[in-house]
Amino acid sequence: MSGVRGVLARRSLEEVQSIVEKALRDYVEERSEDPAMKYARDILLAGGKRFRPVLGCLAYEAAGAKLDDKMLRSALAAEIIHTATLVHDDIYDQAKLRRGRPTLHSQHGLAHGIIAGDYLFTLGYWLGSEQGPEVIRALADSCIAMANGELLQFDHIGNLGTTPEDYYRIIDGKTAGPIACGCKVAAMVAEADPEIIDAMDNFGWEVGRAFQMVDDLLDLTGNPRMGKPRGTDIYEGKMTLPIIHALTSLHGNDRKNLADVLMDFNDDRWDELIALLDTAGSIDYVRSLIDSHVQRAIEALEPLPNSNQLQLMAKFARKSALRTL
Amino acid sequence: MSGVRGVLARRSLEEVQSIVEKALRDYVEERSEDPAMKYARDILLAGGKRFRPVLGCLAYEAAGAKLDDKMLRSALAAEIIHTATLVHDDIYDQAKLRRGRPTLHSQHGLAHGIIAGDYLFTLGYWLGSEQGPEVIRALADSCIAMANGELLQFDHIGNLGTTPEDYYRIIDGKTAGPIACGCKVAAMVAEADPEIIDAMDNFGWEVGRAFQMVDDLLDLTGNPRMGKPRGTDIYEGKMTLPIIHALTSLHGNDRKNLADVLMDFNDDRWDELIALLDTAGSIDYVRSLIDSHVQRAIEALEPLPNSNQLQLMAKFARKSALRTL
Repeated sequence: MSGVRGVLARRSLEEVQSIVEKALRDYVEERSEDPAMKYARDILLAGGKRFRPVLGCLAYEAAGAKLDDKMLRSALAAEIIHTATLVHDDIYDQAKLRRGRPTLHSQHGLAHGIIAGDYLFTLGYWLGSEQGPEVIRALADSCIAMANGELLQFDHIGNLGTTPEDYYRIIDGKTAGPIACGCKVAAMVAEADPEIIDAMDNFGWEVGRAFQMVDDLLDLTGNPRMGKPRGTDIYEGKMTLPIIHALTSLHGNDRKNLADVLMDFNDDRWDELIALLDTAGSIDYVRSLIDSHVQRAIEALEPLPNSNQLQLMAKFARKSALRTL
Repeated sequence: MSGVRGVLARRSLEEVQSIVEKALRDYVEERSEDPAMKYARDILLAGGKRFRPVLGCLAYEAAGAKLDDKMLRSALAAEIIHTATLVHDDIYDQAKLRRGRPTLHSQHGLAHGIIAGDYLFTLGYWLGSEQGPEVIRALADSCIAMANGELLQFDHIGNLGTTPEDYYRIIDGKTAGPIACGCKVAAMVAEADPEIIDAMDNFGWEVGRAFQMVDDLLDLTGNPRMGKPRGTDIYEGKMTLPIIHALTSLHGNDRKNLADVLMDFNDDRWDELIALLDTAGSIDYVRSLIDSHVQRAIEALEPLPNSNQLQLMAKFARKSALRTL
């Protein structure tokens, strides 16, 4: 672990990313004797925007503390638990690629994928333990909600009656909750006032919801950077927000056609699908919801004193929702 | 959670088991709103001897504290994390049955098995957080060692050159360590002196080693109670202690025949295998090692004042090693 000290003021997002990246590399080195790390290191160090830990570091300073090893260890906990879920998700999603590289289980086998994921969860809790029981509990609560959200999502696969309320329950568990947890924990580690901790928590929920909705839109366009072809969710029968909106808005033949397209989807039916989403105005609807969640995220920060870090958080919210960070 | 209070003195092992069982049922009820619990409850409540939490409760009282909710919650953490590993093991071992019931993934699918296992790990850490950071760290350390032990075991599948040292590294990680952790944590929660905590830790290591070696022997005879047919380890190429001993002790044709039997095993070759193990004296060797680990477990308890609970722990060690508890 490097001895990063001092104020983050006037650093760019890229600089924070590189501090996080360095801390992560040091930590992987620190645990390099673990046989499990031999398998886990590739995915840990495969890059990515380090969305969660960067946000944690910004929240920590915006809450009035100076970025230090203590916070970096917490930030790593968030990133490592996130990676654990990616390793396990890739197994049951039968994903072959993650960030352009072979997924852990496709390279090393099912057992190694499951065990390496378990190991990563545990490293996250180990690091969390350095911050005390409240932080562990916050991490554990968010992981419980994540498991619940994932299972709810499975229960709704192919369910054309999925409601927007179901959708929010699912994404709050699997996406928004963990991001909120990272922001809240940062403020807790900074020993901020309860009002500030709540503000960070709220910010995280709103950013996380926007983040998931952007993901839903990207499924309709494809996201080559993530190595994810378009339509993955559609083929899996996942009820994304544009789909739920269109199913709710359309009537008569349009609704019937949409149901037919979804239940029997193939690449020749893209034009049909997009035309139906256009008729329903679903893409515009999701875009306006994303804007509204980003706006609420930024408003959530109001209790905080202005600072460069606060501006970076707001910028982060806007950019990450556009996924152009 | 029931309000169990008071001294355990003069209770039988069965009574401790039933207190643990009741606490576990109450906890499952407490979390019954979690969608993930819908899938996890069957395996949690499928019975079993509750080896780890019972030992924890005995260790707690032998260390001078009175069994209470605090300890029961810790005991549940150990049992729930153990269950998490069973759920995940069953996936990559492709096990169809666990305690005579369909395994979670075979009943509900791969995704549900992985997610329910992750959920159970997290519940364990949540409960551990109630005891403070040292307990979390002890749990996490033992889970890290468990992952490492499992992976080492995979690395040695079918490796006829596996040494007894390799064997101890594997079983210390995957079996003895978690049992030692449970005993140690009990003494920590009891706020016992470091000498007592160490004694409990040592006891757990020795009992755990004996326990694994009994498992190795049971693989040669079958264990209908566990729903495990004989030869599972042999078919999987796992290097159990009787096999490692025979491979090390036999020479010439016997060694060659043994290698051949192991590399090309089928149910028609049981007599051949058992005859070779007899020639090598491997079963007697493992039995004598089990006795020696049980003896060391009992000796490890010497720093503790005599008590009914201490006697129960010794009885427990002797009986569990014979697997007739």
